[in-house]
Amino acid sequence: MKNQKDDNLIVLPDEFGLATDYYELTMAAAYFSSKQTERRGIFELFVRKLPKNRAYMVATGLEQALSYLNDLEFNEDTISFLKSDKSFENLGNDFFEYLRNFRFTGDVWAVPEGTILFPNEPLLRVEGPIIEAQIVETFLLSMVNFQSLIATKTSRIINVAGNKDVVEFGFRRAHGPQAALLAARASYIGGCVGTSNTLAGHKMGIPIFGTMAHSYVMNFDKEMDSFMEFSKVFPEGMLLVDTYDSLEAVRKIVKSGLRTKGIRLDSGDLYLLSIKSRKILDKAGYKDTKIMASGDLNEYIIYDLVQRGAPIDIFGVGTELATSRDDPAMNGVYKLVGVKEPIGNDKYRLIYKLKTSPGKKTHPGPKQVFRFYEAGLIKHDIIGLDDEVFEDSIPLMQKVMEKGRMKKRLPSIKEIRKFHVTQRSTLQSEFKRIDYIPETFPVRYSEKLEEITRSFKVQ
Amino acid sequence: MKNQKDDNLIVLPDEFGLATDYYELTMAAAYFSSKQTERRGIFELFVRKLPKNRAYMVATGLEQALSYLNDLEFNEDTISFLKSDKSFENLGNDFFEYLRNFRFTGDVWAVPEGTILFPNEPLLRVEGPIIEAQIVETFLLSMVNFQSLIATKTSRIINVAGNKDVVEFGFRRAHGPQAALLAARASYIGGCVGTSNTLAGHKMGIPIFGTMAHSYVMNFDKEMDSFMEFSKVFPEGMLLVDTYDSLEAVRKIVKSGLRTKGIRLDSGDLYLLSIKSRKILDKAGYKDTKIMASGDLNEYIIYDLVQRGAPIDIFGVGTELATSRDDPAMNGVYKLVGVKEPIGNDKYRLIYKLKTSPGKKTHPGPKQVFRFYEAGLIKHDIIGLDDEVFEDSIPLMQKVMEKGRMKKRLPSIKEIRKFHVTQRSTLQSEFKRIDYIPETFPVRYSEKLEEITRSFKVQ
Repeated sequence: MKNQKDDNLIVLPDEFGLATDYYELTMAAAYFSSKQTERRGIFELFVRKLPKNRAYMVATGLEQALSYLNDLEFNEDTISFLKSDKSFENLGNDFFEYLRNFRFTGDVWAVPEGTILFPNEPLLRVEGPIIEAQIVETFLLSMVNFQSLIATKTSRIINVAGNKDVVEFGFRRAHGPQAALLAARASYIGGCVGTSNTLAGHKMGIPIFGTMAHSYVMNFDKEMDSFMEFSKVFPEGMLLVDTYDSLEAVRKIVKSGLRTKGIRLDSGDLYLLSIKSRKILDKAGYKDTKIMASGDLNEYIIYDLVQRGAPIDIFGVGTELATSRDDPAMNGVYKLVGVKEPIGNDKYRLIYKLKTSPGKKTHPGPKQVFRFYEAGLIKHDIIGLDDEVFEDSIPLMQKVMEKGRMKKRLPSIKEIRKFHVTQRSTLQSEFKRIDYIPETFPVRYSEKLEEITRSFKVQ
Repeated sequence: MKNQKDDNLIVLPDEFGLATDYYELTMAAAYFSSKQTERRGIFELFVRKLPKNRAYMVATGLEQALSYLNDLEFNEDTISFLKSDKSFENLGNDFFEYLRNFRFTGDVWAVPEGTILFPNEPLLRVEGPIIEAQIVETFLLSMVNFQSLIATKTSRIINVAGNKDVVEFGFRRAHGPQAALLAARASYIGGCVGTSNTLAGHKMGIPIFGTMAHSYVMNFDKEMDSFMEFSKVFPEGMLLVDTYDSLEAVRKIVKSGLRTKGIRLDSGDLYLLSIKSRKILDKAGYKDTKIMASGDLNEYIIYDLVQRGAPIDIFGVGTELATSRDDPAMNGVYKLVGVKEPIGNDKYRLIYKLKTSPGKKTHPGPKQVFRFYEAGLIKHDIIGLDDEVFEDSIPLMQKVMEKGRMKKRLPSIKEIRKFHVTQRSTLQSEFKRIDYIPETFPVRYSEKLEEITRSFKVQ
């Protein structure tokens, strides 16, 4: 019979073995059957094409990716399931025994979370026994793609919000409860000051925000009663004024003498309403009362409101942030760039790999991103082989996992958020414009890498 | 210190109490403080505006919504977190004691999963003590919005795929691992024949599909070796032919004499490649070898391929399906439509509620959707009050939970999928067109409901 966790469709660590595309497991079995367990694969995770209208991306999700690699296992339950699969019936027991002892033992290189990247720049590299490095593809992509998507969207919103605060309000439109939690994390890293998601506050220490819903106001016979009752318990709370008539509600508040930290506008012409509300508040001596705005906001609306000088202090952004609504997918891919064939004595021969499918060509070999700065700003990047050296450049990828073990303490979410602020300050100003769609990015492949790619022959 | 589940950002049932927007909890505390624990709230979940270009929606996610209501609790850990929250410091211990004993005890009405609905038609109604009915808003919305979004997108794709099979391939672009699982469920209900998500196969019995990745092919020095090795282990497996040159690969396969169940095309001109591949296969006597196509497919591309008669047997759809890429949010809302005030002797006085915010006006009172059929097709719906009676109509909402307990066995996922097939067959044909954007839907409010709404006065 089904148990609780199955009803709720939660993906638990002891089921991580099956939390992958089926073909990863058939390939694993095929590698195993052709005795390729000693062969090592080198895979790189990168984004070929950024989401629409994005001029850069924010690499995010590394912590959960590494946590997954650390926890990945096949428990008896998942092994039984595979054994019962018709396609796996040809497989001998030694494959299932292999899965039973499976742990991820590979090495991982990655750029720090919060790093700004351009298309084709690897953000993660996995090198390990080819079965291990293959199986992890799907989960890693899902984790890194989504968080990077949301951090990228957020960073873009923060660029136009200027000195105004932005809070993530998207739980109800996120793609399920875990997506909401991941979105809260990624949007905090991208620059939000907090989230409405209480569990995100509990699990990650992200500041949590909230006002009240229309239903609370409607529950009372008189709107003002709802404000009074709420303020008794939460004197620091904000009052939602648009249930019936926003300006009328603001007038009622100041007339009543009820002090409040802030009001929230959630519908109508936010520009006009914020100006008129500010006037009513100021005139009544409510200079400290803040104005929050929400209701299907995105970077374009916020840009417009900020440019026109709307006296809004805080923006609450929901759907657009939690789903990256204008383009809800980060097209990260995970490509084999090389294999290491065992030649005895723990030695390996490195063989470069690339694919030549139309529009999906890859560059072979393990790579590094070398970043050049000028006056504190990103001048350009070179994607080269990881053993190349470029003077005056900073290599972005670092080794974070060795033989399946973490190499060092990961930064806290607050440290990552701070790191992203400094990353954003290295962007040329045009990259921070929401209407800037670069024709070319300041990135080139190294001459050596181009030469190897050109001379590659496929049988 | 953080534990495993925190690192992986999994939302577990014993944490469900915090898996909600912060304002639900502040409102709960405010209700509690103003002694409104006996008052009952009636909330309805409905969608005001469908995602772009959708002519109908598929209500999905009820099973997980009910499972959440069943499991919802506040454990000591979550209560400690709230106690430590600055805003909650004014609250006496009796509120936390209330949370400690909290269970959902309300009643729920819902349309069966897989039901076709139009805008403004309620798909779920919760009636219960107002604190309970309020707290559950965020999670219910997140669960029902997302699954309905994906089932709706899938149903649309199935409409144009004709007699071709569609498989969900979107794990890597889904919004995290749980979103991938929820998407696998919803897309199976919407009409997919299966998913690539192995865990979805394990947890829900959804048929799982997979071929091989480019990396597997690239790992071998010769493309043909990869096909041979794979087929040894998986004679029923499909071969991915586009790593280097799709037609060349198909020629190599037939020349080698290797029998295969199918080939997968993943790039290039799928129309031309499928025709040419089919010719090569047929000429060599591979009439039973199927052709699968994948690679950023959506309903428009599939429509075009099917209309032009491309000999493709199976479509693998990833990003577009798992994120509903052209519009990734279902704008479900959860609105207070009435309260029941206790008047002693377990009796209540029903008070209608509505909001009048610009563009967000609601209709008051607990409602029912009455559906009228003609010759087996939906003629029109009436949204009326739940105690109205309309002859020859079928009421869509059923009571599914009473006093927090399930009223009956929920259908299996296969039964839901079958139910949706019959639902789709009741749609007028224009609603199944991907280019049809209805100006009006075949839905009206009952006269009684319109009258009550008109006469409503707000203080």
